[in-house]
Amino acid sequence: MLRKEETICAQATASGGAVSMIRISGPLSFDICESIFFPAYKSLNIKEQDGFKIIHGEIRDGNELIDDVLVNIYKSPNSYTGEDSIEISCHGSAYIIFRILQLLISKGAVSAQPGEFTQRAFMNGKMDLSQAEAVADLVSSGTKAAHRIAVNQMRGGFSSEIGKLRSELLKFASLIEMELDFGEEDVEFAERKELGSIIRKVRDLADKLADSFSVGNVIKNGIPVAIIGKPNSGKSTLLNSLLNEERAIVSEIPGTTRDVIEDTIIINGLEYRFIDTAGLRDTSDIIETLGIRKTNEKILQASVILLVDEISESPVLINQRADSIRKKITGFEKRLVVLINKIDEGDQASIDNLKNKIYLDIDDSLLFISAKKLTGLDKLRSKLGKILDREPLSNEEVIITNLRHYEALRHVSESLGRVIDGIAENIPDDLIAIDIRQAIHFLGEITGEITTDEILGNIFKNFCIGK
Amino acid sequence: MLRKEETICAQATASGGAVSMIRISGPLSFDICESIFFPAYKSLNIKEQDGFKIIHGEIRDGNELIDDVLVNIYKSPNSYTGEDSIEISCHGSAYIIFRILQLLISKGAVSAQPGEFTQRAFMNGKMDLSQAEAVADLVSSGTKAAHRIAVNQMRGGFSSEIGKLRSELLKFASLIEMELDFGEEDVEFAERKELGSIIRKVRDLADKLADSFSVGNVIKNGIPVAIIGKPNSGKSTLLNSLLNEERAIVSEIPGTTRDVIEDTIIINGLEYRFIDTAGLRDTSDIIETLGIRKTNEKILQASVILLVDEISESPVLINQRADSIRKKITGFEKRLVVLINKIDEGDQASIDNLKNKIYLDIDDSLLFISAKKLTGLDKLRSKLGKILDREPLSNEEVIITNLRHYEALRHVSESLGRVIDGIAENIPDDLIAIDIRQAIHFLGEITGEITTDEILGNIFKNFCIGK
Repeated sequence: MLRKEETICAQATASGGAVSMIRISGPLSFDICESIFFPAYKSLNIKEQDGFKIIHGEIRDGNELIDDVLVNIYKSPNSYTGEDSIEISCHGSAYIIFRILQLLISKGAVSAQPGEFTQRAFMNGKMDLSQAEAVADLVSSGTKAAHRIAVNQMRGGFSSEIGKLRSELLKFASLIEMELDFGEEDVEFAERKELGSIIRKVRDLADKLADSFSVGNVIKNGIPVAIIGKPNSGKSTLLNSLLNEERAIVSEIPGTTRDVIEDTIIINGLEYRFIDTAGLRDTSDIIETLGIRKTNEKILQASVILLVDEISESPVLINQRADSIRKKITGFEKRLVVLINKIDEGDQASIDNLKNKIYLDIDDSLLFISAKKLTGLDKLRSKLGKILDREPLSNEEVIITNLRHYEALRHVSESLGRVIDGIAENIPDDLIAIDIRQAIHFLGEITGEITTDEILGNIFKNFCIGK
Repeated sequence: MLRKEETICAQATASGGAVSMIRISGPLSFDICESIFFPAYKSLNIKEQDGFKIIHGEIRDGNELIDDVLVNIYKSPNSYTGEDSIEISCHGSAYIIFRILQLLISKGAVSAQPGEFTQRAFMNGKMDLSQAEAVADLVSSGTKAAHRIAVNQMRGGFSSEIGKLRSELLKFASLIEMELDFGEEDVEFAERKELGSIIRKVRDLADKLADSFSVGNVIKNGIPVAIIGKPNSGKSTLLNSLLNEERAIVSEIPGTTRDVIEDTIIINGLEYRFIDTAGLRDTSDIIETLGIRKTNEKILQASVILLVDEISESPVLINQRADSIRKKITGFEKRLVVLINKIDEGDQASIDNLKNKIYLDIDDSLLFISAKKLTGLDKLRSKLGKILDREPLSNEEVIITNLRHYEALRHVSESLGRVIDGIAENIPDDLIAIDIRQAIHFLGEITGEITTDEILGNIFKNFCIGK
């Protein structure tokens, strides 16, 4: 899988900006670039420069000028990958990027696979595996909470927690193994009871980390919200009003993040993702043809269901609809919010009438809004903000967001469970040692002391190209 | 309009890649960056570094780590803008970019307006106005031809042509003005006839450049193509087949240009842009509800009209449809291509029958295809490729692509026309001198020796932010 001898290249920035960057890394980076790069001052040769230097010049294909560029030079081992590396900043034209990549490949570079730059950084000891994974999380982080967790993980916060667990277990394992070596002399180095309590402490820590996944997952992937309701109840108006409010909040700084907030809103640093709003993006939902199957799918995927009805609707029908949703979500961690829309078209008496006649379960909510007049939307936002019932994140708190880490920690916990049972049942040391070694193995998988091509392949295939 | 004393900042790359870049330029660039940037090696202070150096470090908001970044340092006057400048390369997260821009602004920078970096480069004498305009063209160039023209213009090819015209006229103007100074002595420095022929030569050159606009405009903006036809004739299949073929051609190098080829195909380095295909993007065009007015609009905008009909259709109806389009395009530079689709569902006899019975005008074409089976699409591509009847571009040929330049050159030509007439009619020197000065003025507007805030505003407002 790893092609250390190859020099890789890829576009590192997205297409479409004023400037684009192409990355090159590997043993031939300098040779390949020198064959297509002509410095503005002829004396400034790439190879003779120090690292962390920038040269201005032209990329040419034979006589044809492709672009005026800046070249950043990084010399092994002082680069992101640890290898000789080049970054070319060119004008942000897809055509120019295509031509430069084509040129690099014709001179002997190969297209980088997704995550290959970061994979090389890992292989060259620039970061451990959970830090490498944090890079991908950081790139995709869209909220303060997701960003904080990814930064913490990238800086090694999570690795250091895992390292603590691991060193406790290693100490324990060596004691047991020493006992095995001195087995015939019947020496017992470790008081079994005391060791049992250490293992229990380590398992509790592993469990606590694993448990943080439920929060971490929500932080990383957002809270899925479904908007459900009969045609013309104002679902699309509600969606548009929420998204427009969001746009107004985010667009303080021009030119940023507009495309990121499509169909999501952020409340208290958490992302709320509206599910399958394709049919709702028009200004009217008259043509909406969502079938029952589709609606059920949305409810299944959502953590929060917004049932939209009108102030003029009969409470019996509203209760029926709410009830049919309630049946589907019972037993799941899902919340129902009944939204009575178009209150600008009704009076206080109609509101009071519905308030009295709409039945609610303990976790349900009822809100009266006018999506069109933007009435009650702040209450809706605040209601959504309280759905995840949790203290704000502290700066140092370690939270896992990665299914792979969750599974490894569960394996650690299981192995340690067997150790605890084994100690209680006086099982022979060599069997206990196997379970401890297994727990250590799973911890090592998280940080990458233990890896297989399969693990690496799975991790890096989810990266974007150029990272 | 220009705020020289301000330090500006903006995201220079598009959102969504692995890496993003933020640009800062202006007198406080270094101070502002030092207040939020903490170098990995504490001794590496931004201000004390030479230009063209890179420093590794962290961006922090108080105690909160925002990102691990690389900072490129450029010192006035050796930068793109000519001012002190910084480029921050950070992880490509919209959230991180937002936070860094927010920080920069809180420390005293202001959001850059579209094109403001390039405008500063122009103001500081780093490039002339037509070169600055070429930067925007280069960023948006999607084809070999558009790229070549933009590169040539950016390198000053066009400016040097304009410079030649201008110096010829300046020579002429000074001779005339000398005559005016010595007026009473009745000295005639220039043989009027000879001067007339020089002016004629200059005007011909200006005309030739202005004429190149028709080709330049097509190269820059693409050739608009309309796909017209009754429902179910296979328009959407045709569009999809053409676009998928294009995708296959372009995607040789993974990760590039996919999003750029939406609804356009490139043939012989020229772009063909399909007009208003919103209704055709589905896999079936059953639901297409294009009214007659909408169809007429498409025909009006297009240079090429593809009329799609089926092999099973009656030739009378096909002729009627072709005729109604022909009536609309008579007198315009538009071409009609009649495409008989679904030939996989017909036999040779039906093809021969239609061939005999379909009436064609001299510039019309008739092609038999199967959009579904990809039959005949290469013939269609080659037919489209010949629509713009022109030799391939030479490397040095100067072609204008900019309406502003076209208009200025037309003004130059008109002024020189009046000079030529004036010479023929023995009009007094001082009146002739006015027209020559006017021609010189218009040439100066192109390269920016003469500018107004209005001209500059119009030019740079079309740039993207960050350029």
